Amino acid sequence: MAKGFQTLTGFRDFRPEDCAVRNYLFEIFREVARRYGFVEYETPILESTDLYLKKSGGELSSQLFRFEDQGGRDVTLRPEVTASLGRLVTACQRDYPKPLRWFEIGQCFRYEKPQKGRTREFYQFNVDLLGESCAAADAELVALSIDLMRELGFEEGDFVIRLSDRAYWQNFGEAKGLSEEQTAELLQIVDKLEREKPERTEEKLSALGLTSAEIKEAIENPASLGENLESVISEMEARGMKDFIEVDLSIVRGLAYYTGVVFEVFDAKKSLRAVAGGGRYDTLITALSDGKVDLPAAGFAIGDVVIRHLIEETPHANEQLQAYLSAQAPTEVYVVLADEEQRSNALALVTELREMAIATNFSLTPTKVAKQFKQAEQMGADFTIVVGSEYPELTLKNLRERTEETISADQDVLQALIEKIA
Amino acid sequence: MAKGFQTLTGFRDFRPEDCAVRNYLFEIFREVARRYGFVEYETPILESTDLYLKKSGGELSSQLFRFEDQGGRDVTLRPEVTASLGRLVTACQRDYPKPLRWFEIGQCFRYEKPQKGRTREFYQFNVDLLGESCAAADAELVALSIDLMRELGFEEGDFVIRLSDRAYWQNFGEAKGLSEEQTAELLQIVDKLEREKPERTEEKLSALGLTSAEIKEAIENPASLGENLESVISEMEARGMKDFIEVDLSIVRGLAYYTGVVFEVFDAKKSLRAVAGGGRYDTLITALSDGKVDLPAAGFAIGDVVIRHLIEETPHANEQLQAYLSAQAPTEVYVVLADEEQRSNALALVTELREMAIATNFSLTPTKVAKQFKQAEQMGADFTIVVGSEYPELTLKNLRERTEETISADQDVLQALIEKIA
Repeated sequence: MAKGFQTLTGFRDFRPEDCAVRNYLFEIFREVARRYGFVEYETPILESTDLYLKKSGGELSSQLFRFEDQGGRDVTLRPEVTASLGRLVTACQRDYPKPLRWFEIGQCFRYEKPQKGRTREFYQFNVDLLGESCAAADAELVALSIDLMRELGFEEGDFVIRLSDRAYWQNFGEAKGLSEEQTAELLQIVDKLEREKPERTEEKLSALGLTSAEIKEAIENPASLGENLESVISEMEARGMKDFIEVDLSIVRGLAYYTGVVFEVFDAKKSLRAVAGGGRYDTLITALSDGKVDLPAAGFAIGDVVIRHLIEETPHANEQLQAYLSAQAPTEVYVVLADEEQRSNALALVTELREMAIATNFSLTPTKVAKQFKQAEQMGADFTIVVGSEYPELTLKNLRERTEETISADQDVLQALIEKIA
Repeated sequence: MAKGFQTLTGFRDFRPEDCAVRNYLFEIFREVARRYGFVEYETPILESTDLYLKKSGGELSSQLFRFEDQGGRDVTLRPEVTASLGRLVTACQRDYPKPLRWFEIGQCFRYEKPQKGRTREFYQFNVDLLGESCAAADAELVALSIDLMRELGFEEGDFVIRLSDRAYWQNFGEAKGLSEEQTAELLQIVDKLEREKPERTEEKLSALGLTSAEIKEAIENPASLGENLESVISEMEARGMKDFIEVDLSIVRGLAYYTGVVFEVFDAKKSLRAVAGGGRYDTLITALSDGKVDLPAAGFAIGDVVIRHLIEETPHANEQLQAYLSAQAPTEVYVVLADEEQRSNALALVTELREMAIATNFSLTPTKVAKQFKQAEQMGADFTIVVGSEYPELTLKNLRERTEETISADQDVLQALIEKIA
């Protein structure tokens, strides 16, 4: 108690200046999704724990915020949204024409060691295209991720989409005579190639009868990329987006449920982890619905934490963010009360301005005029209207252009003011 | 497992059509707050439990989603936001000019029995004005709540603000010689007047040496409303909002931390509980900061559940909502591919349209032209552009006006199309 209440480790307060950055991200997430014809949904932050145990097969289970509620239910703060989406579309998919283009923006929770770019709570933008198994759907999501980055102010050279296909490794495994379990193990090894010690990798591969050299060769000189990957690449070409992608077969994504084309958005400098990623998961809905619903799907997700770092470290992207933030001034017009006798008239004016959708502020208590002007500037007001003993005559000051004129507290004149402000 | 995964009792999925209603509410919350010069903040959904135990004095403690995290911390899903706000402003208030005009929109969680208008999870719009103790701040919040209701499409006669002041009962208690604890007990009795059996109320009052008749008299014929309440009333008059308010001294608000003017927004038909409410809490920040920060404050909160019911039951408010929903079509332009040979050109066109911020959709797989047109209509598209063997000649169809014309897949012509669409 000595140092007062704190946020929990890994959890964040969003002061107004941080919340504005969050809202900037959300607005761009929504705008890009809208252009691609996606509609927003949301699922609960708290779910029955078995929803995650069934799906993730243990990977996330050590990181769950999991507890028993007052009714004895085993519940979990969602670590990700795809399981909830699977539950939801299983229940209602027949009400909608296919494919579903659905997106979501919401919080997820993972009990991890907090570090740069990793918090215990984060917002995630989830985009999913369900009911379509063709590579054109994968291409649509890759294109969306590129447009998202561009809309956030990133340019060619700032980021790259690393594109891969799990089917490539399935075929590789089959060709090498690996069992299903062995291929799954191989995918885990490939996933960790960049992070694990070479000797350890070699050791694991040798247990499968493979060598690092073979894997390296398979990544660097693929005999064939396969139909889906080729198709995504030529779609990207048609969209004029080919320069943003790069085939990298070492990308397989960690989660076990991916089945086909997968991709990650990387900071081109690679100073941070992948910024975002996604892929095809054709069997997840079937598994979650116990085989009742067969809905091929692909999705893409981006968190708010890493992308914010990347924006702030990239000058032109940061410039765009800062321009947005400067435009967020909480006040457009500040009504200065120069004569307390006129407070009722000032209140009527404030009310009228607000009814016209103008962000209007004023001093709640008797305050010196100079201080009111100072407040107006602090709040970023473009205009002040001075209400004094000359009422209904008012002084309208343009704080940007340092000009002023006399107006009358008359509806028509106000209307003219509105046009000036807008 | 037989019936598949379900949401937890009292938790909601937001399918796209529900999420659009939620977003409608959020947009209006943000817009009204903006007009009043409020800026948005957010605090974590999960907090240390002692933050709530200290403040609410047990009232909410039986309803907490409370658990021990993996690190042995006693944590709670927030039942309300004011405690977190208190924690946050205690830490950072000195960085901002006073008064703070801050708002928040986020989820809260209470383990209650689910029923109409009450879920275990709900969104709450919190508006707080901190650092100002005068009644003008109370009036500002009352005005905001009225404008919020009007912006949601409610009219005079649909709702009423019931206005009261806890100070009135403090004075009443003092005049009757009650101790502080007895006055607190009296406030609890007054709070439950409408819900408790008259005999039980009489019994409780008699323990304080009071009678129902005295209380009834105090509510119906107050000798004086007191300075603050009078001041709020005359401010409402100046703002042209007097017809929306009604003094009702039986309103004291349940939570113990309110100290002065309190108010509730009521459905005029009173078929539901209060829609929203708030009041002054001048000592809460002091208590939360262990006396280190003295910040008088007043706030107002509205949940999303009851207000949605009320909108849907009020024809003119519902009409406004429905108009908003109809305008949310996921597609503005649908690109119809009449010749698969042209798919690359169609993709280029789709990309261009999206770059111009137009919500654009198309069929990912080869599909009969008639079916593509059907999809365009289902998605609410205003226009189709048919890409066929005549490329670069395109057919632009206006689906609303049932007109069509021939255009060329040329940048300038597209620009003209954009103007037509916008």
